[in-house]
Amino acid sequence: MEQTVGYGEDAYCDEARKLIQKACQREDVDIHFLVGGTQANTTVIAHILRPHQGVIAASSGHINVHETGAIESTGHKVLAIPTDDGKLTASQIEEAMLEHINEDGPEHMVQPGMVYLSFPTEIGTIYSAEELKAIRAMCDKYDLPLFIDGARLGYGLCSPECDLTLPQLSQLADVFYIGGTKVGALFGEAVIITSDALKKDFRYSIKQHGGMLAKGRLLGIQFATLFTDDLYFQISRHAIDEAMRIRAALQAKGIGFLIDSPTNQQFPIFTNEQAAILSQNFLLSPWKRIDDTHVAMRICTSWATKHENVDCLIEAIDKL
Amino acid sequence: MEQTVGYGEDAYCDEARKLIQKACQREDVDIHFLVGGTQANTTVIAHILRPHQGVIAASSGHINVHETGAIESTGHKVLAIPTDDGKLTASQIEEAMLEHINEDGPEHMVQPGMVYLSFPTEIGTIYSAEELKAIRAMCDKYDLPLFIDGARLGYGLCSPECDLTLPQLSQLADVFYIGGTKVGALFGEAVIITSDALKKDFRYSIKQHGGMLAKGRLLGIQFATLFTDDLYFQISRHAIDEAMRIRAALQAKGIGFLIDSPTNQQFPIFTNEQAAILSQNFLLSPWKRIDDTHVAMRICTSWATKHENVDCLIEAIDKL
Amino acid sequence: MEQTVGYGEDAYCDEARKLIQKACQREDVDIHFLVGGTQANTTVIAHILRPHQGVIAASSGHINVHETGAIESTGHKVLAIPTDDGKLTASQIEEAMLEHINEDGPEHMVQPGMVYLSFPTEIGTIYSAEELKAIRAMCDKYDLPLFIDGARLGYGLCSPECDLTLPQLSQLADVFYIGGTKVGALFGEAVIITSDALKKDFRYSIKQHGGMLAKGRLLGIQFATLFTDDLYFQISRHAIDEAMRIRAALQAKGIGFLIDSPTNQQFPIFTNEQAAILSQNFLLSPWKRIDDTHVAMRICTSWATKHENVDCLIEAIDKL
Amino acid sequence: MEQTVGYGEDAYCDEARKLIQKACQREDVDIHFLVGGTQANTTVIAHILRPHQGVIAASSGHINVHETGAIESTGHKVLAIPTDDGKLTASQIEEAMLEHINEDGPEHMVQPGMVYLSFPTEIGTIYSAEELKAIRAMCDKYDLPLFIDGARLGYGLCSPECDLTLPQLSQLADVFYIGGTKVGALFGEAVIITSDALKKDFRYSIKQHGGMLAKGRLLGIQFATLFTDDLYFQISRHAIDEAMRIRAALQAKGIGFLIDSPTNQQFPIFTNEQAAILSQNFLLSPWKRIDDTHVAMRICTSWATKHENVDCLIEAIDKL
Repeated sequence: MEQTVGYGEDAYCDEARKLIQKACQREDVDIHFLVGGTQANTTVIAHILRPHQGVIAASSGHINVHETGAIESTGHKVLAIPTDDGKLTASQIEEAMLEHINEDGPEHMVQPGMVYLSFPTEIGTIYSAEELKAIRAMCDKYDLPLFIDGARLGYGLCSPECDLTLPQLSQLADVFYIGGTKVGALFGEAVIITSDALKKDFRYSIKQHGGMLAKGRLLGIQFATLFTDDLYFQISRHAIDEAMRIRAALQAKGIGFLIDSPTNQQFPIFTNEQAAILSQNFLLSPWKRIDDTHVAMRICTSWATKHENVDCLIEAIDKL
Repeated sequence: MEQTVGYGEDAYCDEARKLIQKACQREDVDIHFLVGGTQANTTVIAHILRPHQGVIAASSGHINVHETGAIESTGHKVLAIPTDDGKLTASQIEEAMLEHINEDGPEHMVQPGMVYLSFPTEIGTIYSAEELKAIRAMCDKYDLPLFIDGARLGYGLCSPECDLTLPQLSQLADVFYIGGTKVGALFGEAVIITSDALKKDFRYSIKQHGGMLAKGRLLGIQFATLFTDDLYFQISRHAIDEAMRIRAALQAKGIGFLIDSPTNQQFPIFTNEQAAILSQNFLLSPWKRIDDTHVAMRICTSWATKHENVDCLIEAIDKL
Repeated sequence: MEQTVGYGEDAYCDEARKLIQKACQREDVDIHFLVGGTQANTTVIAHILRPHQGVIAASSGHINVHETGAIESTGHKVLAIPTDDGKLTASQIEEAMLEHINEDGPEHMVQPGMVYLSFPTEIGTIYSAEELKAIRAMCDKYDLPLFIDGARLGYGLCSPECDLTLPQLSQLADVFYIGGTKVGALFGEAVIITSDALKKDFRYSIKQHGGMLAKGRLLGIQFATLFTDDLYFQISRHAIDEAMRIRAALQAKGIGFLIDSPTNQQFPIFTNEQAAILSQNFLLSPWKRIDDTHVAMRICTSWATKHENVDCLIEAIDKL
Repeated sequence: MEQTVGYGEDAYCDEARKLIQKACQREDVDIHFLVGGTQANTTVIAHILRPHQGVIAASSGHINVHETGAIESTGHKVLAIPTDDGKLTASQIEEAMLEHINEDGPEHMVQPGMVYLSFPTEIGTIYSAEELKAIRAMCDKYDLPLFIDGARLGYGLCSPECDLTLPQLSQLADVFYIGGTKVGALFGEAVIITSDALKKDFRYSIKQHGGMLAKGRLLGIQFATLFTDDLYFQISRHAIDEAMRIRAALQAKGIGFLIDSPTNQQFPIFTNEQAAILSQNFLLSPWKRIDDTHVAMRICTSWATKHENVDCLIEAIDKL
């Protein structure tokens, strides 16, 4: 008496899988649809690591700061590496490895078991193809699976400064996900497993972490739509275009930035007065106090940002 | 630049909370919206128990059988009690307590820390008001929080044999949830915490278990709709009405049942031939083999079951 | 300025390892010394299983009943199989497998990932060579590592009814341990890993579970002593001899047994009066109430049991 | 037939408890004997925290670096605060709290749930009475239990620069332990719980973490001995006296230190040549490379350090 097959095995999900495989130019990848980012991160990392292993991440990484210890709740340490721009480097990964494995009695320390990075990062920066290839090579050297958190993937790939494509990413990562929640979907993240060794039993991990949606077709329908007629990239590009207009307006006004971000998040440094004026009409979040008279604010565009609203903001910036 | 407050703190969720509080006739309860049942069970149980405690449950309970060890993954044993009808009794709870706390050196055993039961149970049975009050009294005696899994709550409360109401349930349970996924919603479970002691920091637990939907309004909108104009109960009643028609037809035909269920799941015992004939046109699931020539099948109605389809099924039963 | 190498890498531990390898007639096994039984069980099981897997065990198994949920605390379900005599059978293991893997949507259930059994069992019974070989074959069929809890191993191997040897056991198990705590040592269990696949990184697991003794030589010294001049088996045999004398005295008196145990634990069924009389002078533990007038008591001998004390007990039994 | 009560409830353990209570000048504290330091840390922290909470610690803290992620394996994040001297300050604790609780949506971050510090620290430094009182006041302000890792407690309390006593410590900490393993015992740590709220069910936690020694009297005997006739402090003082002689010799030679340690660990900075010469005859560990030509070495005395060996070392230092 039930109407459709549940739990992500319906026709909509299958169609979405095929469309994403095509966009990735790889037919040999497994694709699973999860509901949210914290869930995707936790499920993937707990699936990969052995109990005595931890995950190398930038200290600003989402898993280290904004997931209420979800990774640790599954038993694993986040081996956080301090960074200024939110990005890991290949040499930082090597240092972390050597620190842990060269010690006399390495078993007294957590064993690094994988690398996590965000593309774009939590503060809007992106990795170049060269940087990511160097990280991939380092992961190969130390046998570390590479997991890329793509909660905002579209905004990274559509940045004017990005020299990476989705197919390239699909070659570089062992697992990554294409974020829906922050890029046009009501919710949902498409987890793509490229490494054969990590594919086995992933549905068990999804279920155990509460990520198996009974009516999985809701995810399939959304991702099938996003990956038809290039929609995912179109709406991502829109967010980036608007962000770049705002960036240009700020630069024209001589306003500096906390971070040089080529994506949909901008972090201008305002005087307290400027911040107060703009906040009257626009939803800006204070990000970091610089000194008594200056504060970095976060301005974030999305697929839903209206061109005319950005016009108003630019006008307000010009008048500062 | 963002359009609405996220993470379940928007106006739609607030409205849904008020409507559910009204339906429960209690304004002092906390209400949280989660995505699915396994997630709700895991989050609530991990939130309540201390590390050395376990949860008493019927061996047929969903948490014991069909959640891929999600409860154990948070560190807790399910203290499973064998039952025939899927229901715990007050005296079984007392026996389990005495077995664990009377032992010489009780610290060598898990300490029972709460009681979990499903209403209706996984096999369609329901507790009477008297049974549930006896369980409540036993929980009070041993200081055990009582958690009721209401994934199919509507189908229980609308059963013709049910002598309990939603307000009564809200008095008896420390925590329970109103299932949306199986009762008319696309997804979503409304977790209701009645006990003050359990309210603190529940949002941390939701986030850690990956249950905090960024666009929480999706849940608010659905539950506000379900609790407007009695919709939740109307659609539940429809499923029950259709199930009772099927039950009557089976009884008229002299067909026995594995379990005497007054809710939307029916478990008739067919001969192999009967099962084969019906399975040609209807989606029945084999539930349990009885002997070489008989098998118990599961027939399940829902809010979406069409009256005319049930007509066809009844006709087919009559012809057996 | 430190005197010896710590953490189990000293010369005493190495000597003990060599002696045990010789007793097992296998030089290719890894041997680690842990402090206690719960620690050994938890460390081994958490080391072997993946997060979504559980361990098949008899419901009376130590890990299921008397370890305060230590296994679950590492995230894994104990898949408990009811038994009367404390022993698993090969066919029970197969049934458990089929139940879990044949289900439509097996990922909704825990995946059985290994088999745990105790030799002798918690109630004194032992497996025959034939029974254990059948279990081994079943484990091979379903790719399940076999772990044997030998907390009381000596008492099993020295039973007059035992047709298994330590070298045979070393061929049948993937991991097992030789219990010291209950067999002559102050504390300590020697964990023997025979399967290459399970050897990697076991020292990390020991450390994480708090089992790495700084002064590991304490364990090495004890086990080197126990495995010199056949001491381990001599003292085990002594306990068995005394237990068999008690068994014979009880049988001669016409007293029945709850369980027919050929090892150091005996479970005679006394009348309440008999139990009361014997308890005046001997430390017997009530094990299970049979009916209003009868109770099964547990009598346990050990390496330290004095022959003359057993004489007194036998005399008291004769007088009953 | 068994000889003594097990699991730490024997007369030796009781006597040791009374002696320690007397040394602490508090009769209202609970005392438990555990086997090792990692076990003690893990058991205490997992016992105190709720699932969404983490523990504030210095980044150099033992739990953060050298316990193979044991804390994380129980589900909790170590909120590591960078320090140069291994010591937390009251204001760092406040900053950490504010960072976590002031955030908009604090539930997206781990909630700090307790403070862990080591006395002395892992690099030999100690807290003054004033510093520790300030930390205690801060813990009170934010309702954070204070846990002091005293694996090397004797070496701290006996330092010539220490202005704290054991009774004072017993007033300041909610839980702390007196290390035996590193201070004269074969193994063992005496955990002292001063806070009533944390006493309940601690034996369950010990058992679950594999720390309940069957022959608990081994721990009782050792601690009773250590706390008879001031032995614990005598042997600690000996280690400190020898360390101070070494320190003086190094200072006389004009050799600098990485850390100014008033306890049994010294960290002189040698030239590569000096390090090579001394390493020929003494067991020094390289601690940290300073530059191409200099390295900080670790020299560690203990209760077992021989006066004449230190004479030799001093002579060798003089000759450098």
